[in-house]
Amino acid sequence: MVANLLYEGKAKRLFSTEQDGVLRVAYKDDATALNGERKESFASKGRLNNEITSRIFTYLNDAGIKSHFVEQISDTEQLVRSVEIIPLEVVVRNVIAGSLAKRLGVPEGTPTKQPIVEFYYKEDALNDPFINDAHVLYLEAATEDEIAILKASALAVNDALKEMFAKMNITLIDFKLEFGRDKDGNILLADEISPDTCRLWDRDTNAKLDKDVFRRNIGNLTAVYEEVLKRLKEVV
Amino acid sequence: MVANLLYEGKAKRLFSTEQDGVLRVAYKDDATALNGERKESFASKGRLNNEITSRIFTYLNDAGIKSHFVEQISDTEQLVRSVEIIPLEVVVRNVIAGSLAKRLGVPEGTPTKQPIVEFYYKEDALNDPFINDAHVLYLEAATEDEIAILKASALAVNDALKEMFAKMNITLIDFKLEFGRDKDGNILLADEISPDTCRLWDRDTNAKLDKDVFRRNIGNLTAVYEEVLKRLKEVV
Ligand SMILES: Nc1ncnc2c1ncn2[C@@H]1O[C@H](COP(=O)(O)OP(=O)(O)OP(=O)(O)O)[C@@H](O)[C@H]1O
Ligand SMILES: Nc1ncnc2c1ncn2[C@@H]1O[C@H](COP(=O)(O)OP(=O)(O)OP(=O)(O)O)[C@@H](O)[C@H]1O
Ligand SMILES: [Mg+2]
Ligand SMILES: [Mg+2]
Repeated sequence: MVANLLYEGKAKRLFSTEQDGVLRVAYKDDATALNGERKESFASKGRLNNEITSRIFTYLNDAGIKSHFVEQISDTEQLVRSVEIIPLEVVVRNVIAGSLAKRLGVPEGTPTKQPIVEFYYKEDALNDPFINDAHVLYLEAATEDEIAILKASALAVNDALKEMFAKMNITLIDFKLEFGRDKDGNILLADEISPDTCRLWDRDTNAKLDKDVFRRNIGNLTAVYEEVLKRLKEVV
Repeated sequence: MVANLLYEGKAKRLFSTEQDGVLRVAYKDDATALNGERKESFASKGRLNNEITSRIFTYLNDAGIKSHFVEQISDTEQLVRSVEIIPLEVVVRNVIAGSLAKRLGVPEGTPTKQPIVEFYYKEDALNDPFINDAHVLYLEAATEDEIAILKASALAVNDALKEMFAKMNITLIDFKLEFGRDKDGNILLADEISPDTCRLWDRDTNAKLDKDVFRRNIGNLTAVYEEVLKRLKEVV
């Protein structure tokens, strides 16, 4: 197989494969924060996120939520369907934390009655700004119908994930999704779902089990991701 | 009449009156920028904004858009109906400028195909942050039905104002509205509409005819507001 690198991101490399419309994703050991300004490598991080994402996409598929995921093919690699990524980070929040705690002046850890969905424009040069539906339409990042699909899908993923993480004794605080369009214009969940893209708090201790241990320098990233994978293996 | 000061803001003072549910608004000569950090006084500014707002609310009323406005009672004062202000700044944009130009990385002066409506949470301590509909609901600033009314009303105001300013040879770039609830829960347009709360560009020269001349230190605020009032008097 010729290794044809299509794209190298901060966390993953995308390669073409011999199969039309199928990509190989190789998870890297890098962790970044502050839009890439801070960067560090953690042995096993690529394996952990690949394993965790593969299991979560499999779980979601069984729960009726289709994604780009095809199969895990090695410790650090998976096959996915190639999509045209919609340039939005779709964030769902069950508990207020991070940037929203600052924006609204609400203490981290305040639960929301209803999940909050937000869009951020995927544009590194602008620092992925928070935008609203009208901006999405202005930017032609998605149509009105697609916005409705993105919100409904994000909430469906949230329902499924909340239930899964509850079984792992973890509260799903918030998470980021990416979606893409396949050749027929269908919207598919894409990218990854891992402790890099979720805030996960232990239900008993509120200990952070996600990339915030790196962002805030408050723990051992590898140990925490191992713990998430261990608990995940017990339930899915 | 006993002068009973209820609230002193950056631009106006609100007084109670002998008439139940009616307030007297006295426009001040102060101009502020950067959430009040920068402040300067301009003789006549209070009169100009009172005159401009009175005329615009009268024009909107004739165009079928109800507001809190009752009548102008002096150079610097008007009577308005008292409402419970909804803590949102409702911004409508026809042309990209100011903070949105920075947020989206789009040059100032880029027209939008459709007007863009935005909500900002009126909370000085947080610097009036930009929020989305889900945040409005979380904050209980407005209900889902009220959000729909706010957006529709803001767009109706935009249609009416665009037409009015066009006759004045002015492009309505963007503007900020505030709305409130009367005793029966009806939503009424409130606050002011003036060069303090609009971006207005001369159609021929693109010269700024609004508070940006103060914010950016690029002209004589009083002369510019006088010019807007002069053109307004020719059309309404
Ligand atoms: N199925 C897919 N088809 C095409 N591209 C995908 C697919 N799934 C994810 N991607 C894209 O692949 C890249 C993954 O790399 P990575 O997560 O390392 O990116 P990143 O550093 O976060 O940068 P960015 O997301 O800003 O491009 C992302 O751009 C992501 O949107
Ligand atoms: N009809 C009304 N009834 C009650 N309050 C009103 C009405 N119209 C406007 N207001 C409020 O009166 C105040 C007007 O004062 P001003 O414009 O000086 O305030 P400001 O300095 O902009 O501060 P704020 O952040 O409170 O708007 C604002 O708080 C505005 O929301
Ligand atoms: Mg990424
Ligand atoms: Mg004001």
